[in-house]
This record gives sequence, C-alpha cells and structure tokens, in this order.
Amino acid sequence: MEASFKPEEARVPAALPLPTPPVTKFKIALCQLSVATDKERNIAHAQQAIEDAADKGAQLILLPEIWNSPYSNDSFPVYAEDIDAGGDASPSTRMLSEVSRSRKITIIGGSIPERSGDKLYNSCCVFGTDGKLLAKHRKIHLFDIDIPGKMTFKESRTLTAGERPTIVDTEVGRIGIGICYDIRFQELAAIYAARGAHLLCYPGAFNMTTGPLHWELLQRARAADCQLYVATCSPARDGGSSYVAWGHSTLVGPFGEVLVTTEHEETTLIAEIDYSVIEQRRTYLPFQKQRRGDLYQLVDVDRLNSTGAK
Amino acid sequence: MEASFKPEEARVPAALPLPTPPVTKFKIALCQLSVATDKERNIAHAQQAIEDAADKGAQLILLPEIWNSPYSNDSFPVYAEDIDAGGDASPSTRMLSEVSRSRKITIIGGSIPERSGDKLYNSCCVFGTDGKLLAKHRKIHLFDIDIPGKMTFKESRTLTAGERPTIVDTEVGRIGIGICYDIRFQELAAIYAARGAHLLCYPGAFNMTTGPLHWELLQRARAADCQLYVATCSPARDGGSSYVAWGHSTLVGPFGEVLVTTEHEETTLIAEIDYSVIEQRRTYLPFQKQRRGDLYQLVDVDRLNSTGAK
Repeated sequence: MEASFKPEEARVPAALPLPTPPVTKFKIALCQLSVATDKERNIAHAQQAIEDAADKGAQLILLPEIWNSPYSNDSFPVYAEDIDAGGDASPSTRMLSEVSRSRKITIIGGSIPERSGDKLYNSCCVFGTDGKLLAKHRKIHLFDIDIPGKMTFKESRTLTAGERPTIVDTEVGRIGIGICYDIRFQELAAIYAARGAHLLCYPGAFNMTTGPLHWELLQRARAADCQLYVATCSPARDGGSSYVAWGHSTLVGPFGEVLVTTEHEETTLIAEIDYSVIEQRRTYLPFQKQRRGDLYQLVDVDRLNSTGAK
Repeated sequence: MEASFKPEEARVPAALPLPTPPVTKFKIALCQLSVATDKERNIAHAQQAIEDAADKGAQLILLPEIWNSPYSNDSFPVYAEDIDAGGDASPSTRMLSEVSRSRKITIIGGSIPERSGDKLYNSCCVFGTDGKLLAKHRKIHLFDIDIPGKMTFKESRTLTAGERPTIVDTEVGRIGIGICYDIRFQELAAIYAARGAHLLCYPGAFNMTTGPLHWELLQRARAADCQLYVATCSPARDGGSSYVAWGHSTLVGPFGEVLVTTEHEETTLIAEIDYSVIEQRRTYLPFQKQRRGDLYQLVDVDRLNSTGAK
C-alpha cells in the first residue's frame, strides 16, 4: 500500500493494534431464554440457565435483550431497576454479580430496563469473574421504526438513549457492546474494531419482520467487515406477547461465517471461540491495512474527546 | 431524535438529499459474459449481448470486470487500451460509445485494463445515451490477497490504484461506481450514499474462495446499510483459466433483498429497478436520520477537498 494512501488515517484516532487476550480459546454460551411476566421467575430462570452453561464449561455467558421483563413500553417502567443503587433495588443485576463470582465466569448480562433518576434506559451490565460490574452499556440507538401494517415500535416514547459506546476488557478478551438496534449502525462496530475489540456482543430482540430480513445479514456483515467475532442473543419467541421476537441467537466468525445458530425456541448454544483466527483472517485479507485514508476517514468522536479511553 | 445527537454530523460534509432521478422505473441488464483470449471476439460478443438486452427494453447495461481480457497480471499490459486517446487506441470503449448512442442506453462498461502513460489501471467507463463518456472510475482498492493454498493474487504487481471515488448522474439516476475489491470497503458505499446515490454498480470477479464466502453478503450488506440498490456483474466462469470467476451477478434492493441472481454460466439478467422503493424503505427504517454524529463521523475527504463536487 502506497504511503500516499494513508491507510492509518482511515480511522481517527488511528486504529489500535489487536491486544493479546488473557485467553485465546474458550467457550461462549448464548442463553436464548423464554421471558415471562413474573420477574422473580425470569431471574431464577436466567440463573439456572447460566449455571447450567457454566457446568458445561462456558467462560462467557451472553443473555438476551430485556430478559427480566416483557418487551413493551408499558412494561419498561414497571420492571425497571436502579442498577447504580444495586442490592434490593436491582435484583436482576445482583443475581448476575453473584453467579459470575461464584462460577468465576464473565457475563454480558443481556439488557434490562434501568431506572436512573427520572429516566429509563435499556442497559447491558458486564460482570467480571470476581462479580464486579465492569461496564454498563445503555442502548445508544433507540428502536423507532414504522413499517405500516407490519411493525411499529417507538422505544423513545419511554426510554432515553445512552451517551457513549462501551468496550470492555474482560478475562475473555476485549468486547464491544451494542443492544439490538445498535447493530444497524456499522460505524459503531467499526469504531469498536478500531479500539481493538476481539468480539462484539449484541443482545437483541429483532422481530418477525426485521428478523428474517436483516438479523443474520447484519451480524455477518459486521463480522466480515471488521474481521472479528460477533455474538447475538435473543429472547425465545412467545407468540402470545405483544412484541414477538425472532430468536435465532448466533455466533459468527471473523470471515462472516455462521458458527452456530438456532431457531426460535428456548435453548442455550455453547460454542468455541478461537481468537487466533482473527489475526489469520486479517493476514489473508489485509483490508484493515488497505483502506484509503486519503479518501475517507471514520472519526471516533468519543475516543477523541476522552483522555486515556480505549 | 434529539438535537444533541447531531445525526446530520454523522456524515462530513452533511449527506445530500436523494435527488429526483430522470426516471423512476426502468430495466437494468447484467451481462455475465464469457471472456476469451481473443479481444476482437470479446468486443463483438459484448456488443451482441448489449444489443440483445437493449432489444428487451434494458435502459441500463452493466458489464463485468475485465471483460475484454483474461483476468491475469500477464494479460493486463497486453490487452490494455489508451481510453483517453480513444478511437483505434481503445476499440473496447469505442464500441461501448457507439452502442450506447445508437441504442440510446446508459452503459456501465464493466472494466478493462487501461494504459495511461507508463501506468496501467483497472477502469470502468460510463457512457450516456448520447454516446458520451460520462465518467471513468479507476479501481481504488487493488486486490492484493494471500490465502495460502487457496487464492493468492496481487493486482498491485501491474496495476496502479485510482485516485478518487466516482459517482455520476445518468439518465437512469445517480450511480456510484466500484470495481470488485472496492466493495470490501463499506466507507466507499457510505460516502456514495451520502452523495445521493440511487444505485451502486460493482463490476466484479470474485473467485472460488472469496465468492462463496462474501460476494452476496457484501452486496446485501452495502444495500441494506445504505438503503439503495446494488448491482454487480461478474464474468461467466471459465474453469480453464488461471483465475476462475465465481459468477453470480446479482441485483439487490434497498432492504438488502436479492431481486435477481444467477449461477456461473453465461447469461444476461434483466430486472426492474423502482427508485420509489428507496424513499419508502428509508421512511420505514429511518436510520439515516438516527445516526449519532455526536459519537462518530464519516468524513468524505474527497468531497471536502473538491469545490462543487457531488
């Protein structure tokens, strides 16, 4: 690549090298949980699924979007928890913290409705193997769509959008977090890749219209364009709920290949991730070094503005 | 969308509105041509396919990448033409000009090896209905890959990369051009979309390794992310050549849906494009207006630097 093409300027600030992860090979579990109207049941049910997956050797657990509550604007305020207050104010994340510590696993805790002051968010908590909260991602891009006669939903009626991207160093690598609609925005995946992500995790509840159209396509596209792993986790389908989830939780490898997927029923998928594949793919197809920074640049405004941020 | 999210700043300069095209519905032809070692035969063969497609009502013709020459570094210098000199120095583009004028059609002329001074390019010429050369795109991202035991090719051994993106107003809408490996770079598609493209055309010869892996995925991803039409055209497969093309020329709609595709044999696909669908899709899924310019920005360096450029 000629120097005048300035490939290193195609990302601003310049892309970080892929960090050496604490572990190269490990098992991930995608818990495609059924969700009921009883929050206590949802918490106990999720705990059981996580413990079962840990028993099978999973070191990283991914839960679905909104797993402790029905997915509806009416339910969000009722099921919301004050995550920052913790304890009794957030039984869902208390459970995640306890299980991650007792089983020494990393949990990407899907998402739950979060109450913070007078605002509600759709939030994903990441717990480390010591049970500590490593990061909290608030859905950045709210799901406001209107396909007449097929699917209309306006999260912004009740929820507030998050303010920042979230990428976190864990015992199982550097992980960028998005929630559902966040996956639509290729820029978010690209800035995570430029921050050295090994894996992107998207808890997500696509629906019966956008699911068949785009769910797998978007996961594969993000993985192939960024040359990293992408994992998604949906709730199981409940045909009787007002919002019917597509299901199809999936793990995609850094060539954009589907490694494991499922249909819409409740299940836990366990699959192996091998981060050494990332460097191999990037050597084969070196387009990370072939970009034309003289023609286009993707600016990570958040990283530019953050001193010392990854 | 809250003003503080600055969606209009997610593209720099700001995205242009979709222009009103001269025609809303029309037929496109994708001529998946067989390519032989005899250049005169290739030119006559392409002319016949174009005229047949025009007879069937196609107003826009897309040809394959490198349709007048075998695809090899040894062949490029031998088959290259001096497009700027024209006339006898470029029989391939002379034919395209004559046919576009005589049939009053727009031709996206795939690509041919171009000689310019002491350099060679992989170049796509666009001819309007009056036979005039509207634009010439020189492949921006050269195809240099190395998948051991499967596919190694270094275009940069013989070719020079183009200097600029190419988007052109035609009688059948505003069209962004990329050649084959250019499709790997989502930034190029995104800046074309921000310049008001209705359609992206990628003449391309993916191979038997990258074809099954990525050819359809990348087309669908560019179309779905940019919410516009994407058309590709490959040479037909010749199992006896040193570089074996994947074929599978395809038209994809603005939801990322495959509208028409084929296998690897010689054929001409004719399909209808309806640009009114673009606005409809963008209304249904308005993520063009939901981007977070406060968090990321894609800068079109070429447009920033060009006075009056689209």
